[in-house]
Amino acid sequence: MPKRIIVIGGLAAGPSAASKAVRTNPNVAVTLFEQGEHISYGVCEIPYYISGEVQESGLVSYTPATLREKKGVDARILHSVEEIRPSKRIVVVRNLATAEVREERYDRLIVATGSRPKKLGVEGEDARNVFAVKSLSQSFLLKKFIDEEKPRRAVIVGGGYIGMEMSDALRSLDIDVTLLHRHSLPMSGLERETRERIREELEKHGVHFVGNVAVEGIVVDKHRKATHVVSNVGSFETDLVIVAIGVEPNTSLARAAGIRLGAHNGILTDTRQETNLDNIFAAGDCCEVKNLVHNKKMYIPLATIASKAGWVAGENAAGGKATFPGAIRAIAVRVFGLEVAQVGLNASEASEAGFDVAIETVTAWARVAVMPKSTKVIIRMIADRKSDRLLGANVYGEHGAVLRANTLTVAIQHRITIQDMQNWDLAYTPPYTPLWDPILVAANAMNKKLTP
Amino acid sequence: MPKRIIVIGGLAAGPSAASKAVRTNPNVAVTLFEQGEHISYGVCEIPYYISGEVQESGLVSYTPATLREKKGVDARILHSVEEIRPSKRIVVVRNLATAEVREERYDRLIVATGSRPKKLGVEGEDARNVFAVKSLSQSFLLKKFIDEEKPRRAVIVGGGYIGMEMSDALRSLDIDVTLLHRHSLPMSGLERETRERIREELEKHGVHFVGNVAVEGIVVDKHRKATHVVSNVGSFETDLVIVAIGVEPNTSLARAAGIRLGAHNGILTDTRQETNLDNIFAAGDCCEVKNLVHNKKMYIPLATIASKAGWVAGENAAGGKATFPGAIRAIAVRVFGLEVAQVGLNASEASEAGFDVAIETVTAWARVAVMPKSTKVIIRMIADRKSDRLLGANVYGEHGAVLRANTLTVAIQHRITIQDMQNWDLAYTPPYTPLWDPILVAANAMNKKLTP
Repeated sequence: MPKRIIVIGGLAAGPSAASKAVRTNPNVAVTLFEQGEHISYGVCEIPYYISGEVQESGLVSYTPATLREKKGVDARILHSVEEIRPSKRIVVVRNLATAEVREERYDRLIVATGSRPKKLGVEGEDARNVFAVKSLSQSFLLKKFIDEEKPRRAVIVGGGYIGMEMSDALRSLDIDVTLLHRHSLPMSGLERETRERIREELEKHGVHFVGNVAVEGIVVDKHRKATHVVSNVGSFETDLVIVAIGVEPNTSLARAAGIRLGAHNGILTDTRQETNLDNIFAAGDCCEVKNLVHNKKMYIPLATIASKAGWVAGENAAGGKATFPGAIRAIAVRVFGLEVAQVGLNASEASEAGFDVAIETVTAWARVAVMPKSTKVIIRMIADRKSDRLLGANVYGEHGAVLRANTLTVAIQHRITIQDMQNWDLAYTPPYTPLWDPILVAANAMNKKLTP
Repeated sequence: MPKRIIVIGGLAAGPSAASKAVRTNPNVAVTLFEQGEHISYGVCEIPYYISGEVQESGLVSYTPATLREKKGVDARILHSVEEIRPSKRIVVVRNLATAEVREERYDRLIVATGSRPKKLGVEGEDARNVFAVKSLSQSFLLKKFIDEEKPRRAVIVGGGYIGMEMSDALRSLDIDVTLLHRHSLPMSGLERETRERIREELEKHGVHFVGNVAVEGIVVDKHRKATHVVSNVGSFETDLVIVAIGVEPNTSLARAAGIRLGAHNGILTDTRQETNLDNIFAAGDCCEVKNLVHNKKMYIPLATIASKAGWVAGENAAGGKATFPGAIRAIAVRVFGLEVAQVGLNASEASEAGFDVAIETVTAWARVAVMPKSTKVIIRMIADRKSDRLLGANVYGEHGAVLRANTLTVAIQHRITIQDMQNWDLAYTPPYTPLWDPILVAANAMNKKLTP
């Protein structure tokens, strides 16, 4: 049995793995190293902290003190792991406060180094009013900047879900928002009609969406303040820049140690979350994940996956037997008044994976039509003509979209056919659901398309 | 191929079957006989019509004229089928308006005679202010009675879901409500703790719930008006009585014709919705339904089942090939501020069916805890220790209970294990769902119980 487990990374998968390791084997000593100032906070809540919906106190789940007290984990912030020496089972750790460097021995190592925001790679990106939405420290700076300097205009670069959430947050603070995106429509992974509806929702709420943009530079004044974002389609004057063009895995440490990476630069693990190296596990945004729809490894940096895979890595590192089979990729976001969810593959991914793709869209009442405040939900299903399996879906509407997408997740994950979905015994009661739930309406329509 | 299909019954399964028959085979002539004045209306919407949430115009989906025009079905109201003669393929029909009796030939017959409200079987039940909540005609009378005579007090007999909905409707009209129920707690099919929470919600909204009541009589004055409901626990003065003690299948016509009935007095069909008699199909509240959890026939008079089984009966009667496998029983109801759902078997049904029952309850945030207006949802799961299957669940809370119950329905229907549920890739976004969806919290807790 292992006596000492070291965890590298304190955000999502790391604390999840560390806590689970102690629960699995209370005799193991678990030490977690985090290079930043904070551990275990809600990155996904940051946009709602910026908008004021969530208080600062609501962002942090555990401090080093509470993680020790409640979970028995020895968490050390401002400790950067600089090298892994697998043959000696040692990590080299630098205390960033004292600059002291130490070697720490492990029996099992869990790599949870997470991801980092992609950079634009242009001049001016380091200006003091250019922010990413990833670390708590930088979020505090962003909040402070908004409170103190009261920007009137913001440019958000990146039309993914963080771009959506930050548009919503900044508009709620009455800041003029221009959203620059490299494609013609926001939310690139979704289907075209869904993306058109999202653009409409953005524009309805005063966001200036500009598509097909390549950012070429940021003009910075003598106070280190960005004043313009320069692009192929012109220059945008601004008081604040948010860069949200995605994240990439933090795997240089792992790579240097000989841990095998995949095509997306993420760590490859088996279903036990074990890497190619003995006694080294990994979980979270630094890893690739098996997509259960087509069984290929994908890079899906989501907290839901990090938490589950973290548990499995922690349990196995502590001597247990657990598996994480993979994920289908379930994404949900609020775009102003619109609930939006995407689950499973999109149509082009499904085609690339060799499926014979059928797409069907329905617009159906989310509640009984004649009830007060009833609204419609749109379900766009992607199915395979050969197996009749549901492969993916976009679901959106003012109400009742995300939880329905979660029901579709189960169909995708368990490879349920459209015909079986038609027989789903879904509840009906006027205040919440219609006689034919939108899911059944969609399955019935898709079945017609599949069985001519 | 059949040339003429006759459908008996115009409420839910009947119009569904008739319409589907025409769609399946446009050359078939479909005649539907309904003894009442209306067809194709929303019985489930009646409580919301009484409360004023739904307008009268919202109750009726099709009139005989629109059913003919849009679906090609010849629907005749005020036509009572008095006899089925299977050997001659004839039904004997009385026109209630003219008293004329005719024989009508069929190639295929679909019996969709539905259900009728159970009666108390006591004196005074026919008073003019005693109502059931089933037919549109009687609902109009109830609405008129409330509008014109402005009752101050009502007694509702029956604490099932219609009792819940009518309590809500009458309280919203400022009528004092006393709810009499034969058991100690309302909603008898649910688990005890769920029922306690429902009683609390009723009382919080001013409903006087009285349990363990056997109604012995109704005192009627000289104006044919009930004034008191007399019971084993005392007499309740009232201006209005609602009787909602359940329904029973309308199967005397079928029984007389030699159609086989089951233990619950409902018609037995195969998965094609065909009865034991040649060319006779049946669907809806007059039928028993296979419960897919334990594969036994149950009586589950729900519109969701009637519509689906109606489609299958119609398609097969018209020469198609369709099957309705059965249902798991999914019930949802709004009890004032509480969403309540029950899916699958309850614990005592599961025990009786021979399962080795484990029960686990969790209370978890329906949305991210620190988001504004976040509330908790309670999930009470019933699983089988031998197979680790989910057998049933109660789900309730102020928000996000019913749609989550629908996700659990899929687990029950597809016999998914608790361990597989733990790996469900459910979406997470602060405004709608937490990092660990309540479903995952419940599955994790149940797994601990199942794997000691």
